[in-house]
Amino acid sequence: MTNLILPAGYRYASVYAGIRKKKQDDLALIASENVASAAAVFTRNKVQAAPVVLSRKHLELSGGRASAILVNAGNANCATRTGDKTAATAAKAAAKLLRVPVRQVLPSSTGVIGVELDASLITNALPKLVAGLSADRFSDVARAIMTTDLVPKTSSAEVSLEGGPVRIAGMTKGSGMIQPNMATTLGYLMTDAGISPVDCKRLLATANELSYNRISVDGDTSTNDTLVLLANNASGVPLEDRDFDLFQEALTKVAQDLATQIARDGEGASRLVTINVSGAASDEDAVKIARTIANSPLVKTAIAGADPNWGRVISAAGYSGAEFDPRKVDIVMQGLLVCKGGLAADFAEAELTKRLKQKEVQIDFRLRGKGTGRSRFWTCDFTEGYIRINGSYRT
Amino acid sequence: MTNLILPAGYRYASVYAGIRKKKQDDLALIASENVASAAAVFTRNKVQAAPVVLSRKHLELSGGRASAILVNAGNANCATRTGDKTAATAAKAAAKLLRVPVRQVLPSSTGVIGVELDASLITNALPKLVAGLSADRFSDVARAIMTTDLVPKTSSAEVSLEGGPVRIAGMTKGSGMIQPNMATTLGYLMTDAGISPVDCKRLLATANELSYNRISVDGDTSTNDTLVLLANNASGVPLEDRDFDLFQEALTKVAQDLATQIARDGEGASRLVTINVSGAASDEDAVKIARTIANSPLVKTAIAGADPNWGRVISAAGYSGAEFDPRKVDIVMQGLLVCKGGLAADFAEAELTKRLKQKEVQIDFRLRGKGTGRSRFWTCDFTEGYIRINGSYRT
Repeated sequence: MTNLILPAGYRYASVYAGIRKKKQDDLALIASENVASAAAVFTRNKVQAAPVVLSRKHLELSGGRASAILVNAGNANCATRTGDKTAATAAKAAAKLLRVPVRQVLPSSTGVIGVELDASLITNALPKLVAGLSADRFSDVARAIMTTDLVPKTSSAEVSLEGGPVRIAGMTKGSGMIQPNMATTLGYLMTDAGISPVDCKRLLATANELSYNRISVDGDTSTNDTLVLLANNASGVPLEDRDFDLFQEALTKVAQDLATQIARDGEGASRLVTINVSGAASDEDAVKIARTIANSPLVKTAIAGADPNWGRVISAAGYSGAEFDPRKVDIVMQGLLVCKGGLAADFAEAELTKRLKQKEVQIDFRLRGKGTGRSRFWTCDFTEGYIRINGSYRT
Repeated sequence: MTNLILPAGYRYASVYAGIRKKKQDDLALIASENVASAAAVFTRNKVQAAPVVLSRKHLELSGGRASAILVNAGNANCATRTGDKTAATAAKAAAKLLRVPVRQVLPSSTGVIGVELDASLITNALPKLVAGLSADRFSDVARAIMTTDLVPKTSSAEVSLEGGPVRIAGMTKGSGMIQPNMATTLGYLMTDAGISPVDCKRLLATANELSYNRISVDGDTSTNDTLVLLANNASGVPLEDRDFDLFQEALTKVAQDLATQIARDGEGASRLVTINVSGAASDEDAVKIARTIANSPLVKTAIAGADPNWGRVISAAGYSGAEFDPRKVDIVMQGLLVCKGGLAADFAEAELTKRLKQKEVQIDFRLRGKGTGRSRFWTCDFTEGYIRINGSYRT
């Protein structure tokens, strides 16, 4: 995190509020000096945590403007009697201390579901939290939002727009309950560019689709997943139409960097797996194939065992729902052709086993035909560590 | 298996043909003395093994009649250069020795994908296999078709029809790559009732839907899944219209008994988990909810850890795609109400943890509303043993 480029006009803070048992900061705040344009994508789970419901409402009421993000770890504030009240009380108390309208505060929570979250733990800790706000405490927040994460996850970029340079910095948390098609876990992207709320929405939707929606750890999806983009114009550089693609590219890269860090840190994971699909009838079909391979426990355990079991890869593609001719499938693992035209290729098995033990594994699923559909997904291997972590998370 | 009631007119045999490394019978034959009516359901995977393709073709050519089932374990005969030829050669050789048309032989294979299966291993072993056919070797076949299964799986029933008693006996194999909506793994149901091919198809479709399509071990689906029903009329008792429901019920029970044995023997599993959903808007929605809960690695690892984490259950239901109001959900685990109206109920956690350590776990997901949709699913817990088995299956 030493090389992070931070956008101007944001301050960060974290404290230990006593929400999680382990004495490690569990309440964090990101505050913008100006009112920022804001957009967010949320979980599509039918069961939505109170802070998700309230953040969505606040963004509607404010017309896509926000001044602060208030996050706690250790309790998801979901499926509880007092959930809505706790989220509202916490947001209100933070707004008062920050002297902003409550609709400009976006609350987030992560942790266990179904356990009451005592609002006073948050309100009691808030004065110290706000007093601790500082431009250089970005990494403290990245650490405070961690749950089963082994490492904090951050990324940043500088982009030269027509009007001058702007900066993007992001942080994220999550290592389980991650599944494509979701905003997934918690992620916060901040920029000092001047962007309208409408453009924030467009930019975030595209970045999310190509990053968080393309990773999978265990196929489960959370009740709390949230990804937020804030743009506070502290640089004084507005995003012009001609800058749009350049900025989109930079934002997507930061989001992809964060998302792949999640896959790499998947619960119990020892390897980052990148899945490239090409030659599908459509991009949608390519996404179906890549997602099904990425979610297959049999593929993921084979990678954990450095087993070049391409039969499981083609079998997973076969039940993805995508249309393709199995006789036109080539599969390349770590640069070696293992399946040609749907049949076993003649490959050096010992060499491949060796390459599969590397920290990063790449599987290319190529359809030979007229299709131009492609997609890229990221996942991790599935080890005994995943079971150990998840068999005893709550108790 | 001591209490099995076997239908008349079938003989069974198994030998070691050298297909699997371990010296354990790997080639088996089920032969009917009369030409039997036959129906089958096969995998819906796009990638289909050669014996699946050939069996489907044989059933079409014969108009739903079969005399024998030839099964090998140790090699799936899938995604190989010589697959079609090997399956055809094996079926032809068996037909010749049994003196039946080749279209009356249904081949099946299970084992590793993408490795050539030498047809001569089968043709060389066939004379001994056919010579060994005997009415009392049912359990030898049940054992020969095992791969990672820890125990052979059989079930039987006797039904009193209007015309007299008939018998149903079934055997199955499978402990991984099991997913609803598939014929799943290998299963063979034999009866000595007199049933038309058309009725066989109807009976099998219903039995399959309520048994094999309602179990899940890891969400993966195989390239070889096959479930066959043979009805050889050796009892001389025809299935009349008024017998239909009674026979259907008995056949479904045998299929459910076999399917739950698969879930119970799931790779690395320590517990059988039954999931009951009720009060859904439709049976389809109930199936969606039950399937998603059954497939959730987070639910399955929680059960492995005897962790009463009902939050994972409601969260899985939430991303199932079914419509429901989270505030109308009650969840009962092992007889204890853990979630009431979508919120934590006041339950004796220590008592529940104790009950969750029992060999069988039941989760009831009840929607309080106007819906009458219901479904029952079976799955197993997800332990470190699953990873151990699947990380080194091929190598």
